[in-house]
Amino acid sequence: MQVPSTLSPADREARDRLSTDTIRTLSMDAVQKANSGHPGTPMALAPVGYTLWSRFLRYHPKHPDWPNRDRFVLSAGHASMLLYSLLHLAGVVEIDADGKPTGQPAVSLEDIKQFRQMSSKTPGHPEYRMTTGVETTTGPLGQGCANSVGMAMAGHWLGERFNRPAGTLFDYRVFAICGDGDMMEGVSSEAASLAGHLKLGNLCWLYDNNTISIEGHTELAFSENVITRFQGYGWKTVHVTDANDTAALANALEGFDGKGDAPLLIVVDSVIGYGAPNKHNTAAAHGEPLGEDEIRLAKTAYGWNPDAQFSVPDDAKGWLEALLIERNQSTYEAWEASLAALQQQAPALAEDLKRMRAGEMPEGWEAAIEPFPTDAKGVASRQSGGKVLNAYAQRIPWLLGGSADLSPSTKTNLTFDGAGSFQAGHYAGRNLHFGVREHAMGAIANGMALCYVRPYTSTFLVFSDYMKPPIRLAAIMEVPVVFVFTHDSIGVGEDGPTHQPIEQLAQLRATPGVLTLRPGDANETAQAWKVALQQTHRPSCIILSRQPLPTLDRERFASADNVAKGGYVLADSPAPKVLLLATGSELSLAVEAYEQLKAQGVDSRVVSLPCWELFEEQDKAYKDSVLPPSLTARVAIEQAGPMGWDRYVGNTGAKVVMSTFGASAPIGKLQAKYGFTVENVVKLAKEQIG
Amino acid sequence: MQVPSTLSPADREARDRLSTDTIRTLSMDAVQKANSGHPGTPMALAPVGYTLWSRFLRYHPKHPDWPNRDRFVLSAGHASMLLYSLLHLAGVVEIDADGKPTGQPAVSLEDIKQFRQMSSKTPGHPEYRMTTGVETTTGPLGQGCANSVGMAMAGHWLGERFNRPAGTLFDYRVFAICGDGDMMEGVSSEAASLAGHLKLGNLCWLYDNNTISIEGHTELAFSENVITRFQGYGWKTVHVTDANDTAALANALEGFDGKGDAPLLIVVDSVIGYGAPNKHNTAAAHGEPLGEDEIRLAKTAYGWNPDAQFSVPDDAKGWLEALLIERNQSTYEAWEASLAALQQQAPALAEDLKRMRAGEMPEGWEAAIEPFPTDAKGVASRQSGGKVLNAYAQRIPWLLGGSADLSPSTKTNLTFDGAGSFQAGHYAGRNLHFGVREHAMGAIANGMALCYVRPYTSTFLVFSDYMKPPIRLAAIMEVPVVFVFTHDSIGVGEDGPTHQPIEQLAQLRATPGVLTLRPGDANETAQAWKVALQQTHRPSCIILSRQPLPTLDRERFASADNVAKGGYVLADSPAPKVLLLATGSELSLAVEAYEQLKAQGVDSRVVSLPCWELFEEQDKAYKDSVLPPSLTARVAIEQAGPMGWDRYVGNTGAKVVMSTFGASAPIGKLQAKYGFTVENVVKLAKEQIG
Repeated sequence: MQVPSTLSPADREARDRLSTDTIRTLSMDAVQKANSGHPGTPMALAPVGYTLWSRFLRYHPKHPDWPNRDRFVLSAGHASMLLYSLLHLAGVVEIDADGKPTGQPAVSLEDIKQFRQMSSKTPGHPEYRMTTGVETTTGPLGQGCANSVGMAMAGHWLGERFNRPAGTLFDYRVFAICGDGDMMEGVSSEAASLAGHLKLGNLCWLYDNNTISIEGHTELAFSENVITRFQGYGWKTVHVTDANDTAALANALEGFDGKGDAPLLIVVDSVIGYGAPNKHNTAAAHGEPLGEDEIRLAKTAYGWNPDAQFSVPDDAKGWLEALLIERNQSTYEAWEASLAALQQQAPALAEDLKRMRAGEMPEGWEAAIEPFPTDAKGVASRQSGGKVLNAYAQRIPWLLGGSADLSPSTKTNLTFDGAGSFQAGHYAGRNLHFGVREHAMGAIANGMALCYVRPYTSTFLVFSDYMKPPIRLAAIMEVPVVFVFTHDSIGVGEDGPTHQPIEQLAQLRATPGVLTLRPGDANETAQAWKVALQQTHRPSCIILSRQPLPTLDRERFASADNVAKGGYVLADSPAPKVLLLATGSELSLAVEAYEQLKAQGVDSRVVSLPCWELFEEQDKAYKDSVLPPSLTARVAIEQAGPMGWDRYVGNTGAKVVMSTFGASAPIGKLQAKYGFTVENVVKLAKEQIG
Repeated sequence: MQVPSTLSPADREARDRLSTDTIRTLSMDAVQKANSGHPGTPMALAPVGYTLWSRFLRYHPKHPDWPNRDRFVLSAGHASMLLYSLLHLAGVVEIDADGKPTGQPAVSLEDIKQFRQMSSKTPGHPEYRMTTGVETTTGPLGQGCANSVGMAMAGHWLGERFNRPAGTLFDYRVFAICGDGDMMEGVSSEAASLAGHLKLGNLCWLYDNNTISIEGHTELAFSENVITRFQGYGWKTVHVTDANDTAALANALEGFDGKGDAPLLIVVDSVIGYGAPNKHNTAAAHGEPLGEDEIRLAKTAYGWNPDAQFSVPDDAKGWLEALLIERNQSTYEAWEASLAALQQQAPALAEDLKRMRAGEMPEGWEAAIEPFPTDAKGVASRQSGGKVLNAYAQRIPWLLGGSADLSPSTKTNLTFDGAGSFQAGHYAGRNLHFGVREHAMGAIANGMALCYVRPYTSTFLVFSDYMKPPIRLAAIMEVPVVFVFTHDSIGVGEDGPTHQPIEQLAQLRATPGVLTLRPGDANETAQAWKVALQQTHRPSCIILSRQPLPTLDRERFASADNVAKGGYVLADSPAPKVLLLATGSELSLAVEAYEQLKAQGVDSRVVSLPCWELFEEQDKAYKDSVLPPSLTARVAIEQAGPMGWDRYVGNTGAKVVMSTFGASAPIGKLQAKYGFTVENVVKLAKEQIG
């Protein structure tokens, strides 16, 4: 459909109104058919979503992977039918994993009828990779808000990198729809504070102020002045007092060109379940079907046939699509022209962009690392990790990241010329300063990873607890964020139990789709970073020590390249009687015990297990060659909790692990107290042999 | 020492100044001797801490367990030397675990010299239970802030309960010292928003605005207007522009009587490392020793002998102690009189308070629960859990709690007469409305648990990720908070992978000191609650289903009382050939498989394992009787990740578990897809027999 040039303003308005109500009715019907879901917010926000998409969003429904499209994030992911309805009405085409159109719509009417059914394109919450047009997976509240900050940061960075010499390739804006829950979650507070600090003028949050949460009126728990709070963060704010007042909303959005010096919060007062005469403005409209009777009444209130289900009236069919194409076609073509010009004028830069879009690395990036020489005194893996990171980052211009105010300790600062700090007005910087905001850091990194760059984060391992939700979402979304965690054990020493991780390794290993890498020396650290950067579809956690670790003699022992297999025989004997299994800082302890056993005439084998997930992916023959099933005399050594080690040492093996929290004391005292000594390992190894 | 009545104002002031500088020098010296720690903030905040303690804090150093003492929370826990110095100068006496004075000081000068050493009373961060006078364990930023909100909430609740008929027993205030990091963390934002909503007039945060964080100046990442933000939350705010202007601080505190209708934020501009000529106002003063030379220069700047180490000048010895006793002695005695009057006028209430102080339950509370009758259709464990909770809560008047805006789903609302909602002006309510603030909910519950009440929280299991840090701290502090988590598996159904927990059970089980209880039917749920409420020194997580679970026939099968042992033989055969191990919603699936195997002539045994931690605490004979080592044919069934199950099924057993994230679909389809069917379990059981 094209937009007919003869259409009167009243006719246009009628179609807009009809399209808006189509979103509402599709949402009601889909939830009712699924007998589960959230109808109230799509009904309330249909005019907001529709106005944004039809009049403001830079989005081409035939090119949903246009890199410079505005990003639309539905942080209130439970309102997924709002997004699915928009994608349907916009006529967005489906793109496969290789970026090719499949010839199918992103969301067909049939897909909407399959809402919340197995393998449908319309799951209960929007899932990135499952539905074209879903920019990020949302549902856990606050995450989408923080993702949007990451997308906006990436947008500024991309603009700095690619808008010269050929013209503007990146100046997209990011819009996020946030609910009361989003506003209450701490992660969005952290993200909003950082967004204000960074003066992200390309970011706009639309806050759905419906005053209803699950337990009832927000007066029960949420009476703050959100506008004042956001002014404190340095945001611009606008209040639209009626979600159906599309003129007021349009007025607020008119001034938002993405080039200002502050993010924009638009507070939109809405009525949850708008149009449902008995359930509107109640918690009952939030998270369950309205019921057939109430739906009929609501349709009647919209002036619709109460019997029509999953109805898209003729005048709504193709209307939003036509408006989007009319408004964006020339912008899209101009963008393609700029890209062609870039290819002409700066082919290397254009090649970078092509690789970034494909999730590929620059040619030859893996050659960046020289082996670390054998060194008995050694170096903390946070130190070697920082060195490795800096080497890789010089070969991968779009590798950028930072720390939650701990970079002097995590050693993740990029120190080479030109790396710079990412700050307001200095958006080309590659060192990100997240402040003491671990949770937002993780979610922001996820948002950045959705916009072509390769982000990493860092903090202490114990504070991975603060960022577990975004680590999980990175895994669900299959985005290859690198989460660096240092200070990985009681090796932290005097800071004591609150700063000494115990269960965190098990937590990360238990999370599906995450690589957890705990390298044992500088060369394993280099390989761990390489493995992490090789990932295209999963996040990695790199776990590093505070204290120095000897750099093992790789002439004498097996190569650290074996990190890629997750586990390997590091040191062996012709006929080992006992296996010593270790990771990270305990690897050299295992080697010392091996040496001492050898001196005592006892043959043992040291198995390094830096990445359990990769080891499990090896074939049985390899795994059995490393851990011969018949060799049940085994000792596991790891300065962390025991959970999971039974898999490798069985019920009869010994475990030198932490079964309690740690304590505040110098590291040497702690290691002795908890049994991380050569003597203890040797003793247990001999007991295992029996 | 008594305060000499003849002392001139100038002499008093000199002693105050000397005491303040003693805090500074002790802090510098202790960090230097330990060769690790954080000197800069104690140096900056010495006048703030000293002014608060000497002139305002209701605290009696000889009665540090006085229930109505003001609570002093050092949320910036890394500044622990500030607190240890205050406890030393205040002459606080040590109280043992039974509440008896040991005759020792809480913190002696020798203890300060043992700063950060093994088993000392002065660990790197303040640890509750390790040092008398430490009101909560702090260090992970933001937690202390949120704890303080819980303490303030508990204070209001206690006041409503105990201030009639005999006089005021509870009107304590809560002071928290917060740093930049605290202010950036989302958990404190959540807590501040709730504190404003609840109009907690007994709460005061002193924000140490030193503009320095670890990466450098806060301008790197934190430029919001904190005062405006807190005004948005509904707090009163005062700005003290110089931490050394004790008159200004005193002026701000004068008006804070704890009876107002809003919490108070005092922003105090300070200079980190005050007095150290080369390191003040730099990140270098934050987290490492100043060095001997700089310490000598700082001491000189204070007008001290640069050579004196760990020096407490005579005029500072006993001075703060004398001031505290002079100001608080009569208040303390009046409180004791009120308590005596309560014992006279309302002995039952006085008995309650006595038990609360001792961490005991009311007489006969365990008798509250009637067994649930056998019911094949059954009831969701969130439903039976709600019923059980309500029954216990009626017998335990100080059991109170709530949900992060999910109580209609978690079924944790107290519905009996008089339970009420805890709101501003209605502080007697026992239903807490935390809003969508899981992280603060956990930390607030910890704070409440430190103030005699028994709190519980609830949300969906997947959102335990949002509150892992306070769960960990509850375990470290050994406080018996009950964390209820419902919607515990893919049984969530259509909400999809973001709402379906997988790794969360393993995470909780991996955390030392936490009981993780996943009951299999209504009667196990009742026992799980009982076990949780019996705990005095550890938190419990009660994991409950969204979907109905059959109530098993306890005449035919073993009693649910066995939950207390963590694991037990539920259903058996004379000579079982295979073990079926299950927890929670999979217990009835195991029973169905057992029945079908029996019908096919195959003898099996069903082992219920609702609490691994308790099972591990049983003796070997019992454990072997439940899981005979020789019987290696085993099938574990749990709708969660595999981590940890190797312990119980060995390398050869089968696991019906979730090895990936889930999907959005109706529950029946999900269970079939992932193998949670009787057919699959029977098949695997037979394969195990071989």
